[in-house]
Amino acid sequence: MFFASDNAGPAHPSVLTALADANQGYAMPYGADPIMDEVRTKIRDIFEAPNAEVFLVATGTAANSLALACYCQPWQTMFCAPVAHIQEDECNAPEFFAGGAKLTLVGEGEKMTPTALEQSIRREETRGVHGPQRGPVSITQVTERGTVYSLEELNALTKVAKSFDLPVHLDGARFANALVALDCSPADMTWKAGVDVVSFGGTKNGCVGVEAVIFFDPDKAWEFELRRKRGAHLFSKHRYLSAQMNAYLTDDVWRQNAQQANANCARLAKGLKDLGVKFMHDPQANIVFCSFPRAAHQRLHDAGALYYVWSGELEGDDPAEMLEARLVCDWSLSNEQIDQFISLIGAD
Amino acid sequence: MFFASDNAGPAHPSVLTALADANQGYAMPYGADPIMDEVRTKIRDIFEAPNAEVFLVATGTAANSLALACYCQPWQTMFCAPVAHIQEDECNAPEFFAGGAKLTLVGEGEKMTPTALEQSIRREETRGVHGPQRGPVSITQVTERGTVYSLEELNALTKVAKSFDLPVHLDGARFANALVALDCSPADMTWKAGVDVVSFGGTKNGCVGVEAVIFFDPDKAWEFELRRKRGAHLFSKHRYLSAQMNAYLTDDVWRQNAQQANANCARLAKGLKDLGVKFMHDPQANIVFCSFPRAAHQRLHDAGALYYVWSGELEGDDPAEMLEARLVCDWSLSNEQIDQFISLIGAD
Amino acid sequence: MFFASDNAGPAHPSVLTALADANQGYAMPYGADPIMDEVRTKIRDIFEAPNAEVFLVATGTAANSLALACYCQPWQTMFCAPVAHIQEDECNAPEFFAGGAKLTLVGEGEKMTPTALEQSIRREETRGVHGPQRGPVSITQVTERGTVYSLEELNALTKVAKSFDLPVHLDGARFANALVALDCSPADMTWKAGVDVVSFGGTKNGCVGVEAVIFFDPDKAWEFELRRKRGAHLFSKHRYLSAQMNAYLTDDVWRQNAQQANANCARLAKGLKDLGVKFMHDPQANIVFCSFPRAAHQRLHDAGALYYVWSGELEGDDPAEMLEARLVCDWSLSNEQIDQFISLIGAD
Amino acid sequence: MFFASDNAGPAHPSVLTALADANQGYAMPYGADPIMDEVRTKIRDIFEAPNAEVFLVATGTAANSLALACYCQPWQTMFCAPVAHIQEDECNAPEFFAGGAKLTLVGEGEKMTPTALEQSIRREETRGVHGPQRGPVSITQVTERGTVYSLEELNALTKVAKSFDLPVHLDGARFANALVALDCSPADMTWKAGVDVVSFGGTKNGCVGVEAVIFFDPDKAWEFELRRKRGAHLFSKHRYLSAQMNAYLTDDVWRQNAQQANANCARLAKGLKDLGVKFMHDPQANIVFCSFPRAAHQRLHDAGALYYVWSGELEGDDPAEMLEARLVCDWSLSNEQIDQFISLIGAD
Repeated sequence: MFFASDNAGPAHPSVLTALADANQGYAMPYGADPIMDEVRTKIRDIFEAPNAEVFLVATGTAANSLALACYCQPWQTMFCAPVAHIQEDECNAPEFFAGGAKLTLVGEGEKMTPTALEQSIRREETRGVHGPQRGPVSITQVTERGTVYSLEELNALTKVAKSFDLPVHLDGARFANALVALDCSPADMTWKAGVDVVSFGGTKNGCVGVEAVIFFDPDKAWEFELRRKRGAHLFSKHRYLSAQMNAYLTDDVWRQNAQQANANCARLAKGLKDLGVKFMHDPQANIVFCSFPRAAHQRLHDAGALYYVWSGELEGDDPAEMLEARLVCDWSLSNEQIDQFISLIGAD
Repeated sequence: MFFASDNAGPAHPSVLTALADANQGYAMPYGADPIMDEVRTKIRDIFEAPNAEVFLVATGTAANSLALACYCQPWQTMFCAPVAHIQEDECNAPEFFAGGAKLTLVGEGEKMTPTALEQSIRREETRGVHGPQRGPVSITQVTERGTVYSLEELNALTKVAKSFDLPVHLDGARFANALVALDCSPADMTWKAGVDVVSFGGTKNGCVGVEAVIFFDPDKAWEFELRRKRGAHLFSKHRYLSAQMNAYLTDDVWRQNAQQANANCARLAKGLKDLGVKFMHDPQANIVFCSFPRAAHQRLHDAGALYYVWSGELEGDDPAEMLEARLVCDWSLSNEQIDQFISLIGAD
Repeated sequence: MFFASDNAGPAHPSVLTALADANQGYAMPYGADPIMDEVRTKIRDIFEAPNAEVFLVATGTAANSLALACYCQPWQTMFCAPVAHIQEDECNAPEFFAGGAKLTLVGEGEKMTPTALEQSIRREETRGVHGPQRGPVSITQVTERGTVYSLEELNALTKVAKSFDLPVHLDGARFANALVALDCSPADMTWKAGVDVVSFGGTKNGCVGVEAVIFFDPDKAWEFELRRKRGAHLFSKHRYLSAQMNAYLTDDVWRQNAQQANANCARLAKGLKDLGVKFMHDPQANIVFCSFPRAAHQRLHDAGALYYVWSGELEGDDPAEMLEARLVCDWSLSNEQIDQFISLIGAD
Repeated sequence: MFFASDNAGPAHPSVLTALADANQGYAMPYGADPIMDEVRTKIRDIFEAPNAEVFLVATGTAANSLALACYCQPWQTMFCAPVAHIQEDECNAPEFFAGGAKLTLVGEGEKMTPTALEQSIRREETRGVHGPQRGPVSITQVTERGTVYSLEELNALTKVAKSFDLPVHLDGARFANALVALDCSPADMTWKAGVDVVSFGGTKNGCVGVEAVIFFDPDKAWEFELRRKRGAHLFSKHRYLSAQMNAYLTDDVWRQNAQQANANCARLAKGLKDLGVKFMHDPQANIVFCSFPRAAHQRLHDAGALYYVWSGELEGDDPAEMLEARLVCDWSLSNEQIDQFISLIGAD
C-alpha cells in the first residue's frame, strides 16, 4: 500500500524495453542521437507546435529551474503559489539557476487567482530601481494539492501575466494527469492558453527519470542549451533520456498511465467518501488530501501503508483525533492495495 | 569504427539487466532506496574506507562541480591543468556551482607538475584580500590527453597541496582506466595518496549515466546533499542510479570494462606504431593522440570511421599533410573495428 | 519642506570638516588608515564590546547584504518582516550576496512577533533536504513604518531565533533614532539582546555615506573582508569613510542628530494630532504615516512640500478623499518647515 | 616619500570644496540630484558623445565589474591581460557580478597583442556548448605595469574583438594619465577606437572615491542601473559622488592632475636613469618598475620611503642583490620627495 508519492513507483515496462533497445552500438552523444529527433517530432505533433524547441533533462527541479532562468533576470521576481514546488521543494534551485532572483508568493491558496496575481504584480515595481522587478509567472498544473486549473482559470491567469508583458511557465510535473482530468488537448493547456514554456513531466508518470522542457518561443533554445550544460544537466549518453521519453510518447503510454493513476485516485476517493472521510481539497487528479482518526492511521501504519501524515503526529494520545494525510496514486497501484487501504480506514 | 568518445558506446548488459531488476514495485525515493545501501557498502569496501560518504549523480560535470563547490569558497581559485575538463568542457559549471570562484591554470602540459603547482599556489594570495584566495587542487586521472599520473606523481602533487593546507579533488571520469593502467588499489590512488574527494566515473566505462562522488572526509556529506538538491541533481527515482552503479561494481564489471578498453587501445596503438605513426602523447589508458596524413584521414572518413580531428582540417589541399587525431577506445569496441582502422591508415 | 526621506538631507558640518581634516598627505589605503583605528576603538567603547570587529561600507544595502551573507548559506532562507528594507528596497541584493538564498516573510505587520517568527521557522526545514534550510533572522530597528521594537520585544524575538540556533542581524539604518527612542545603551539594543551583527547606519543621520558593520562574533571578520572586497565595497581611500564615521561618533553627534530628528518628528506629530490627523502607525522615531484629504495634499504640493504619497494618487477627483503620506524627518529640518507643513494641512 | 600607490594620496582641494558646497539643504537621492545632470553633460561634451549614458560608483572594482557584467553572460569568458586588475586585484568580483563567468588570460605580457587576442578568442568556442562562450574584451589603459597602449595598438585590439562581434571594455582607472601620455582626445581613446564602455577613474587622480561608467551604447543603461542597485552600489546621498566628479571635470582638474602625476614620474625616471637604474617596463605614465640593490632599498626604507618591493625580499643577506620596486607617483607628490628618493638610491 504505497501512497507516499508517484516518484517511488516503477517505470512502465515499455520504458525499460526502450532502454534496452537503445543499448545497441554507438550513438552520438549530448542530444545528437537519432531517438531525440523522434522525440522532438512527436512532441511537436502532440502539442501542434511545429516550431517548438524541445530539450530533455533528468529531474523536475532541473526542468523548472532551467526553464525559469531563461525568463528571469537576477533582479526580477517569479510569481507563484505559496505551496509551489519551486518555492517549497527545490532547496532554492530556482533562485540559484536564476542568479539570485526572488519568488513572490501569490495569495494564500494552492491555486493563484487572477485577482491575487494582479495585486502581487502591481505591488512589485512601484519602487523603480529599488525593488525587485517583475518576472515570469509560474503555474503548477496539477497543483501541489491535487487540484487542477480549468482552462478558464488558466487563461485568466495568463491574461493577467500578458497584460504586464510577463512570460508564463507551466510546471507540468503531472502534466498528463491534468490533461486527462481536463480532457483537453496539450495545445489547449499550453500555448493556446498563453503558456510560453512547459516542464513536461515523465518521471512521476511511468519513466525512470526524464522531463521535457518545451519552448513555444524558439528564440530561447540556445540560451537553454548553454544553461543546461552549465548546470551539468546535459547527458553525454543522451540516448537513454530520449529512449525513455520516446517510449512514454508512443502508443499513448503517457495518457494511459495518467488515466490509470487518476482512476486509481477516483476509486480511492470514492471509497473514502463512502466512509464519510473529509477532504481538504477536491481530488481532481491523482492526489487526495483528507483527514481521518489517529486510530485508523495506526492501523494503516501497522499494516505497512506508506504515505505522508500531512498535519498532526502519528504518535499521540487521542485515537479519535483527526490527522490529515496526503495520498498519492501512481499508475501502478493495484485495486487490491486501494481497497485494502479503504477497508483499513473503515475497520473501526 | 567509433573512436569519437567513450561516452557514445552502449552500456554493459549487466547494467541494463540491473535496471530491469530494479523496476519492481515501490522504492523509497531520493537516495533512500535499499540498492543505494549496497552501493555504499561496496564502495567503502573497494576503497578500504569504512567512513567514506558516497553520493550518486548522473553526469561527470555534476560530480566535479558539486564536489569542488564543497571545497571552494566563491573568493577562492581552483588549481588545475590548462586542459582539464573542468576548464575546457564544462561551460563554466565549476564557477557556477562554486558561486563565482576562479580557476588557475597550472603549467603548460596535460599534467600538472609539483613545481608548477607550487609556483601557481605561491603566486596567489600574495595580495591579501585583493587577489583570489587559494582553493582546492583538482587532478584529472586519466588526463585529458590519455596519460596517467603515476602514484609517485600523484603523491608529489598532493604533498604540495597539503603543504598549503589545500584540499585535493580527483576527477576520475576514467578512474577505472587509470587504476588498471597503474595496477594499484583504489585506496592507493585516492586517500592513501592524499585525495580528499573523488569523482568516480561510471558513464564512460559501461553505465547509462551515473557517477559516484566519494568523500573521504565525511564532514562534507550534508553540505553535498544540500548542494546536490539545490543543483537539481537529486533523483527522485534514485534506485535507477543505484542499480547502475551496483551492477557496475558487481563481478568486477568496472575493472573488466576498463581492462578491455585499455587493451583495445593498446591493440590500436601497437598497430599504429608498427605503421610508424607518431604519437603526441604516450597512450597509457584508452586514448591515443597521433598524427597521420590527410589522405589516410580521408580514407577512414569515407569508410565511416568517427573520431575527432584534433588539429588541422579534414578538408584541405595536401594529401600528405599530417593532421592530429584523438582516438578513444571504449570497452565495447571490437578487434575487427580496430584492425580495420589500422589497415585503412596503412592502405597507402 | 522636505519630508521625502532622511537620505536627502545634508551631512552634519562636523562630518564635512572631518573630511577636510583627513585630506592631508598620504594615508594607507583599504582600511589601514589610522582614523579607522580610532573608529574601531570608539565603537568598541560605545557598544561595550572590546572584541567586536568593525568594518565600514558606503551604503546601507551593502551593510545589510554583506553582513547577512556571512550568516546565510545559499540554500538557506532569511527571516524578516514583509516590509523589511532587505525585502522591498534592495533589488535582490541580499539574495545576490548570499549566492541565491531566499527570504521568508514573517507575519503581516511591520514588526515580527515571536509567535509569527516561531511559526515561520518551524514551517521551514520540515522537508529535509528538499526545502530551504533555516538561516538568519533580520530585525529592522527603527522599522520601515517608523515604530520601534521595545527591548522586551527584541529579546523575545532573539530568544526564538536562539532556540533554533539561528543568528540574528539588526538592520540599524536608523539605529540612533531607535536608541534615542528607547533611551537604552547600544549594548542593550544589540549583543545584550542577542544580536550577532549590526548594520549601524550613519548616512541617514548626518553622514555623507557610511555605515558600520559590527560583528560581536569576531570569527566572521576575515570572511567579511573577503566578501566586502569581492563585492567591490572596499574603499581604497578608506580614510574618507573613517573620517565620516569618526566625526559622527565624536561629541555625540550621532545621538544629538537622532534626538533632533526624533524631536522634529514629535513636533510634526503633535501638530498633526492637534488637527485630528489619523496615524497609520504610532510615530516612535522620525517617521510619520498618516492620512489627510487630497485637498490638503494639493496645498502642500503646490507649496513645494516633498514627501511620498504612500497610498492613493495625488491626481484625483474627490478633494475630501483621504490619502496616506509618509513623512520622514531628518535632523536638519527647521521648526519653520514643520510648522508651515502643519499649517498648510490645517488651512482648510 | 610615498610611492606605494596613487590611491593613498589626498584629494584635490577643489574636490573637497565641492563636497562642502554640495552640502546645502536637500537634494533628491539616488542620482536624481542636479549636480549629476552637470556631470552627465560635461562627460558627454568631453567625450563628444551626446548619447552616452553616465553612471557613478565609488570604487574602481565596482565600475569594472558592473560594466563587464552588462556585457558578459555567465557562460562566457572575458579576455584580458594576465596582470589585469580584474584578474589579479578584485578578489573574483568580475566573476561574482557576472554570475560565475570566466576570465581568459591573453598572452604573457602586460599588454595584449592582436595576435595573442585572436588566438585566445579562436581557442574558445571550438567546443560548441561544452566550453565557455566568447565574451567581452577588457583592456587596461594605463596598463598595470605603467605602459600605455598607443592608439594604433588600441585600434588593432578592438578590430580583432569586433571581427568576432565581441564588446570592448576599457579599464580606465588611470584614464587621465593615459590620455595625457598619448596627447589625444577622450573620443580617440574610446568610442573612436571601438570601445563600448569605459571605467573612467577619478579616485586615483585626485578624487575621494568616485568612478564614472560611460556607455557609448545607451541600450545598456537600465540594466546597469539595476545591477548597480542590486550590487549595493547606488548611493542614496548621490550628490556627494556627483560633486566630486563635477569638480574633477571642472577647470581641467582631471587633466592637470594627470599631467602633474606623469611629470612627477618623468622626473623620478630621469633621476633613476641618470643613476643607471634598470627599468622593467618603459614608464609611460605615472608608474616606474625598476631594480636597484638591497642596500639602496634599505636606505630608503630607513628614511621612511613607502613603495612595494615587487620581487625579492627586503630582508636578505646580500646588499648588492638587485630587487625590483614598483614606484607610483600621484599628482600630490613634491619635487623634494622625488629628489630625496633619487638621492637616497644614489647615495652609495
